[in-house]
Amino acid sequence: MKLTKEQLKDIKNQQSEQNSTKRVTVPELENILYEAIPALDHGFVRVIDYMGDDTSIVQAARVSYGKGTKKVSTDSGLIKYLMRHWHSTPFEMCEIKYHVKLPIFIARQWIRHRTANVNEYSARYSILDKEFYLPSINNLAAQSSSNRQGRGDILEGDQAKEVLELLKNDAERTYTNYETMLNEKYDGSTIDENKKGLARELARMNLTLNTYTQWYWKTDLLNLMNFLRLRADHHAQYEIRVYADIMLDTLKKWTPITYDAFIDYRVGGTEVSSKGKLILQKLIKGQKISIDESGLSKREWNELMVAFDLKDKIV
Amino acid sequence: MKLTKEQLKDIKNQQSEQNSTKRVTVPELENILYEAIPALDHGFVRVIDYMGDDTSIVQAARVSYGKGTKKVSTDSGLIKYLMRHWHSTPFEMCEIKYHVKLPIFIARQWIRHRTANVNEYSARYSILDKEFYLPSINNLAAQSSSNRQGRGDILEGDQAKEVLELLKNDAERTYTNYETMLNEKYDGSTIDENKKGLARELARMNLTLNTYTQWYWKTDLLNLMNFLRLRADHHAQYEIRVYADIMLDTLKKWTPITYDAFIDYRVGGTEVSSKGKLILQKLIKGQKISIDESGLSKREWNELMVAFDLKDKIV
Amino acid sequence: MKLTKEQLKDIKNQQSEQNSTKRVTVPELENILYEAIPALDHGFVRVIDYMGDDTSIVQAARVSYGKGTKKVSTDSGLIKYLMRHWHSTPFEMCEIKYHVKLPIFIARQWIRHRTANVNEYSARYSILDKEFYLPSINNLAAQSSSNRQGRGDILEGDQAKEVLELLKNDAERTYTNYETMLNEKYDGSTIDENKKGLARELARMNLTLNTYTQWYWKTDLLNLMNFLRLRADHHAQYEIRVYADIMLDTLKKWTPITYDAFIDYRVGGTEVSSKGKLILQKLIKGQKISIDESGLSKREWNELMVAFDLKDKIV
Amino acid sequence: MKLTKEQLKDIKNQQSEQNSTKRVTVPELENILYEAIPALDHGFVRVIDYMGDDTSIVQAARVSYGKGTKKVSTDSGLIKYLMRHWHSTPFEMCEIKYHVKLPIFIARQWIRHRTANVNEYSARYSILDKEFYLPSINNLAAQSSSNRQGRGDILEGDQAKEVLELLKNDAERTYTNYETMLNEKYDGSTIDENKKGLARELARMNLTLNTYTQWYWKTDLLNLMNFLRLRADHHAQYEIRVYADIMLDTLKKWTPITYDAFIDYRVGGTEVSSKGKLILQKLIKGQKISIDESGLSKREWNELMVAFDLKDKIV
Repeated sequence: MKLTKEQLKDIKNQQSEQNSTKRVTVPELENILYEAIPALDHGFVRVIDYMGDDTSIVQAARVSYGKGTKKVSTDSGLIKYLMRHWHSTPFEMCEIKYHVKLPIFIARQWIRHRTANVNEYSARYSILDKEFYLPSINNLAAQSSSNRQGRGDILEGDQAKEVLELLKNDAERTYTNYETMLNEKYDGSTIDENKKGLARELARMNLTLNTYTQWYWKTDLLNLMNFLRLRADHHAQYEIRVYADIMLDTLKKWTPITYDAFIDYRVGGTEVSSKGKLILQKLIKGQKISIDESGLSKREWNELMVAFDLKDKIV
Repeated sequence: MKLTKEQLKDIKNQQSEQNSTKRVTVPELENILYEAIPALDHGFVRVIDYMGDDTSIVQAARVSYGKGTKKVSTDSGLIKYLMRHWHSTPFEMCEIKYHVKLPIFIARQWIRHRTANVNEYSARYSILDKEFYLPSINNLAAQSSSNRQGRGDILEGDQAKEVLELLKNDAERTYTNYETMLNEKYDGSTIDENKKGLARELARMNLTLNTYTQWYWKTDLLNLMNFLRLRADHHAQYEIRVYADIMLDTLKKWTPITYDAFIDYRVGGTEVSSKGKLILQKLIKGQKISIDESGLSKREWNELMVAFDLKDKIV
Repeated sequence: MKLTKEQLKDIKNQQSEQNSTKRVTVPELENILYEAIPALDHGFVRVIDYMGDDTSIVQAARVSYGKGTKKVSTDSGLIKYLMRHWHSTPFEMCEIKYHVKLPIFIARQWIRHRTANVNEYSARYSILDKEFYLPSINNLAAQSSSNRQGRGDILEGDQAKEVLELLKNDAERTYTNYETMLNEKYDGSTIDENKKGLARELARMNLTLNTYTQWYWKTDLLNLMNFLRLRADHHAQYEIRVYADIMLDTLKKWTPITYDAFIDYRVGGTEVSSKGKLILQKLIKGQKISIDESGLSKREWNELMVAFDLKDKIV
Repeated sequence: MKLTKEQLKDIKNQQSEQNSTKRVTVPELENILYEAIPALDHGFVRVIDYMGDDTSIVQAARVSYGKGTKKVSTDSGLIKYLMRHWHSTPFEMCEIKYHVKLPIFIARQWIRHRTANVNEYSARYSILDKEFYLPSINNLAAQSSSNRQGRGDILEGDQAKEVLELLKNDAERTYTNYETMLNEKYDGSTIDENKKGLARELARMNLTLNTYTQWYWKTDLLNLMNFLRLRADHHAQYEIRVYADIMLDTLKKWTPITYDAFIDYRVGGTEVSSKGKLILQKLIKGQKISIDESGLSKREWNELMVAFDLKDKIV
């Protein structure tokens, strides 16, 4: 992530603002406002704006005239209750806006979360930056043999190098040809004064999916948590998890009570099916259980045993 | 609208806050923050929170690192362009939150706007205030004879009085019976210590649709304008228009450039069908036009003539 | 629920259609298509249309050219997997449309589910039917003393009668006055030829919240399940649960494999927080547990014990 | 677009289905159901399923018990009225599902329409087909000099050839390297038995944005028209317009009355701002107009003159 002088100045300018407001503010989050927090090799996450804090959830849940309740402990109890019972609307009363730079193949996963507002940098209108994601050596994993959409072991020495070479060369070559077609370099300089450039909306199709794009992304607290639950999970692709982990940290700064409840009930929690409940009940009573009588598939059985750390019962 | 001492104090407390923030602020809107702006006989609109201003639209449209552009004139030109060409996503980058008190039959119209976040006061959980909407005499209109879902002339003397009596008596009687069933008065006092009260979730069904409810309602700038375009329009029911007009004024304070573009292109603008275009073209060229050859229905023809103030052409 | 001759004929007409289609069809659901299934005292649920079946979920999940997979067992395994892992988009590929008649206070709960399409009968345009919901004696419950938004014991004899009288009389009186104000009876006949009627959009405000309304309501399978999970739950208000139970039955006819997975993983399943997991793990290992060391509130502790049928551990 | 034998057989199988249903059917649309209609060089659009027809819009708008009204002319008048006055909910009562094969850079534009259901072919799970979009010679346009996000003249001979060569070679090379990294060919055969392949979720990042992907895409009639209004417009990028034009044709087969109204009021219609209205009024009255007094920018002025075919007034 190399920000230009101009960009750094723009960020500094916004960070030096000192405005007065009657709205609720969150000093912890103000501290990192506008900061470009690095993600992967050239990406970043910036918090641009926010609305509300933990007390706003309480205020809306109670439809009260004032701010939250009088006591933090009451607010905390209510927020935990709302989280536990899947109340959704009070959490929608807080809003946050990010500026994110990310590889296109990750942007394509991200955009599947529909309940958000997005403005993406337009490659019909402008030239994309000359930046591509190249995984670090210890993220170059083989296809998992057990999970058709997951990663297995890290690739070994030579093959890893070879892969990195291919990724790097292909990204650079296709970008250079993108410039050739545009008849314009990434810095805006014209290549051949006697030529016209191919339309930007066409030339971009030559770029590889690890090219970086960027967008403004705004969502409410409920949908942010929905996003984080899926994307900060260990089943998520590593590259999007890097972003989710950074955002999880901004969530902690923004609404610490909600964050704690979220970690307890969602991230660290688990779901048990009706069949799974019967098995746990038998285990608690010290009764025998067997996969055959459980009605569970082998996969489902193991997922249950892993969730409750019953490693000796994995089959 | 009678706010209790407690409520007034809560409002004053929030209005006296002086927080420091790096976020963009809108002094014009800060001035009326938390204020209960009266609507109808017992309702109100309060602006509780907001995110962004006119420059945020520009910032998102450009996916820029800094705040808007350098010059107000450039911002204004871009916002007008976006509005004219129905660009939607940059306007979603601003968010506003209201606290609204309104009659239930209006709340039922309002809630049909789905792209918003809502927390309504729960009549399963609490007792509703003893407040009902009673129209003023000059809003007691007869059913329109030409428009099946509109109003015609004002009702004359005796009938108007009679209607008001009916509305008033029915609302008061059903509310009193609501209290009887709850075995609890509106102020929380128990009526008969030896009786149980009917569950609140049931007793509420006895209330009339002009009873006031209240909610927190949060939406983005785009969807606020969608709401206002329909609800501040003269086709909208008068009672919801009262709220929309107040909100239109908050829009003007919040994002004045967007407000101007909205008034010019949406509120004051009109749409012309392909058949309508041909007629206007003929009129401009001084050619003859006739409804028979136009392909327009009488209704549609007249709508066009009214839109362009061609009263002599109305048939 | 009294359907007019005209309405019954309309229903019969549609039920007698025999159209040929290449689309997937569900004979079990076709059997009850258009039928008005009674709900409460005057309401109903009618299935009007549907798109897709269990195989459509599989088809979309695989983005396949043909219909589902070759084998029902494979389809079933995949649907269970998708449900267990909260995959959402394949379930959005099926759609269903209902025609529902329901009391207004229930319609107000229902409409909070935003991801659906709705056309409600317009009381600005037409006169509402003269039908109000009156609970049966054994649904007249007192306010719960433990749960602020729930029901407790059934009201006893005299008080129940009194409540029913109040509800009945108030609904009838306000409806009669609604007719008076409209200067029009429910059957469309004019009351006084020399008078104008009050605009419908105003007169309706005099009706009580147990008046019946009706709407077309269309949603996808995912959002139908979200609705049913909340509204067929025992925490839901009885009156909406009556509708949800009927719709649960239509779900079973429509997509039986999905229905089974839904019952196992959602309806019959439970969630366990990270703190709750530790307690269950201790119980399984035969270790001692105590509420003080658990980090759980009393309420949360008891919810866990109830979920796993550990009645002796309730405190 | 080369469909495999297996795929063709799957399509034929579905097309040979003859199911009986009481639902409304649209024979014109049934005729092309499941058919792969070619789009660009390797893409297609297939209609997979639909719910409702023109009468369903009328049925929902009236909340009627039967099907539409008795007369086609009445249905048509109502649908035109609804379209003209921007009534939206009745059009949401029809639903359609497509299977689409399209280049990734077009998929990225398309997915910005959020109110739709999507299942995309997963490149984390499977290998993408070896197919890339290469524009035909007469679609290789230069960047527009007047419109920063549009196309200008067609590129001339040599440069066009050169561009095509670059696009072709880069797509093929990056795809071959994608196979190398996966250690697996597009047909599923392993390349080197002694090697592991890179995880699919990583290898895909090497593909260029003109690689084809595919998805199931389902939306309601209202949102389909919103999509088509933007994407079948001449401002839309040519490549997505090809898809929109095909879908416009399926709309015509599906709901012909709605299609006509859509073409008249939306596609062929125009919007006039309040300032623009004043100018047209003056023109009709034969009064002088000038851009200086109009309050319009030059760009806006010209847009108005073009919309009403007043070429001599363009400045």
